[in-house]
Amino acid sequence: MTEKRVVVALGGNAILRHQERGTAGEQFENVRRTCRIIADLVRDGHSVAVTHGNGPQVGDILLKNELAKDTLPPMPLDVCGAESQGMIGYMLQQSMDVALRAAQLDVPVATVLSQTLVDRDDPAFEDPTKPIGPYYTAMHARTLEAEMCWTMVQEPGRGYRRVVPSPHPSAILESRAISTLFERGVIVIACGGGGIPVVADADGTLRGVEAVVDKDHTAALLARLVSADDLLILTDVEKVALNYGTPRQQDLDGMTRAEARRYLEEGQFPPGTMGPKVESCIRFLDSGGRRAIVTSLERARDALAGQAGTTIVK
Amino acid sequence: MTEKRVVVALGGNAILRHQERGTAGEQFENVRRTCRIIADLVRDGHSVAVTHGNGPQVGDILLKNELAKDTLPPMPLDVCGAESQGMIGYMLQQSMDVALRAAQLDVPVATVLSQTLVDRDDPAFEDPTKPIGPYYTAMHARTLEAEMCWTMVQEPGRGYRRVVPSPHPSAILESRAISTLFERGVIVIACGGGGIPVVADADGTLRGVEAVVDKDHTAALLARLVSADDLLILTDVEKVALNYGTPRQQDLDGMTRAEARRYLEEGQFPPGTMGPKVESCIRFLDSGGRRAIVTSLERARDALAGQAGTTIVK
Repeated sequence: MTEKRVVVALGGNAILRHQERGTAGEQFENVRRTCRIIADLVRDGHSVAVTHGNGPQVGDILLKNELAKDTLPPMPLDVCGAESQGMIGYMLQQSMDVALRAAQLDVPVATVLSQTLVDRDDPAFEDPTKPIGPYYTAMHARTLEAEMCWTMVQEPGRGYRRVVPSPHPSAILESRAISTLFERGVIVIACGGGGIPVVADADGTLRGVEAVVDKDHTAALLARLVSADDLLILTDVEKVALNYGTPRQQDLDGMTRAEARRYLEEGQFPPGTMGPKVESCIRFLDSGGRRAIVTSLERARDALAGQAGTTIVK
Repeated sequence: MTEKRVVVALGGNAILRHQERGTAGEQFENVRRTCRIIADLVRDGHSVAVTHGNGPQVGDILLKNELAKDTLPPMPLDVCGAESQGMIGYMLQQSMDVALRAAQLDVPVATVLSQTLVDRDDPAFEDPTKPIGPYYTAMHARTLEAEMCWTMVQEPGRGYRRVVPSPHPSAILESRAISTLFERGVIVIACGGGGIPVVADADGTLRGVEAVVDKDHTAALLARLVSADDLLILTDVEKVALNYGTPRQQDLDGMTRAEARRYLEEGQFPPGTMGPKVESCIRFLDSGGRRAIVTSLERARDALAGQAGTTIVK
């Protein structure tokens, strides 16, 4: 098989599965399984960079801040995101190392803490949409709106939750370090949780913002950065479907970029789930990528061999 | 000034000062000041790698885990250490970027999450000495000893505290990534808190351990890794002293390695404070380093110019 450059974007279930409490033991077990699959891709001759979500982990960190707030100052969302990159990056790099040794592959691994530059005039800042952290009662939600200036939304049957803006990523600040390592054969883990969102003030000063960048959108940026041939987005399902969840559901083996764009405009792929994944695939192809694939973790290797998943090409 | 390779080991007060509560605002302010000083070293033409402690930060993370333990599973010490590397690395790399831009220097910065390999047969595992995390009552301490198999020690007037082993660092697992970046001109932030301690089992499988590696000892390893000329250990005081805190206190401008070793053997430098710093300086010189300096953050630049601090040479 020819060597290819692949960016693997891990879905939540690669680290924590539904129904799990989120102990370190559970997460390490999932991550070890995930890394064995990635090691297979490396053995096949691919150069791999890895990125990942952080929703449940940053949610737990935020909740711990909340529960401890009478004793210790809570950290803002950007700092909590950095903590989650540390936590998940550590589990991934250690487990990747174990999986590579088991496969008798001598390939270095490193996590680069990543900040994602966003535009401080991004319209998303006027319209927070991304729910984060714990659920609150209606009364507590009103207090937080008043005291913290948070935007709260009700999730039926579960309570109120904070929503933050989800601005578009315009650059990865650690791009030089990431591409240097990738070019030198290091398996780079980067841009966890979409990267820590930062804005540049008028004088160029950087500061973190209370926002979340969509991880698949940042994955497309990362894939362009390392000149990836393939962007491999791993999720819960093996294929992207039309009319998902209806009797007329139709799983797709492949789409052209134009078809993907049309389905997206028709509303086939919901905003919170498959929408951003397909959109990121299109962006990756727009920026010169060769092939984008959406599939499940288990089918990653088959998908790269063209035998599973939904493949999107120009 | 000739370009030199310098490893800067930041003391606790570079990130959080005594009496501060540890808010993100306080920490960012301290870190920005610290990074302006490091940017001066870069402007002087030095290639710099940065390492740092994590005591107060990992202490807060552990306490948050404790306070939230009825709701969320607490994370083990290695994972908390990884979180603290994420948190502090983020603050440092963002602030470093800001300081470099202000100085009109275009130098990339990146934090590499770092694991430190320790020997699973290190005698330190039989004799835990390093206090970590919150203080407990005598009764709570007894429960933790019984249920968690923790070793607890009493700190007079403050309560009981967990102590963990402090094994000797034998290798930095991300050494190839760190040296690749350093050689390519990146200011690398690495080995925070001494690095996350891991052991290799008989079959080579890595796993994190509940221990803390002395950060100055790991700094000496990092300095050797990047072939540093100078190891610059920054702390609260400008100079190392003999008979510290007595009427006969004598501040030292310099020592030879042999003198440093003799003073250390005489017990001039206490184990918890100046001892490991001087010991690390000696190790650095033993491994081929040219010059080791202990001084305060404020005098860092002067010290490198030979005009402040305590310099130890072969």
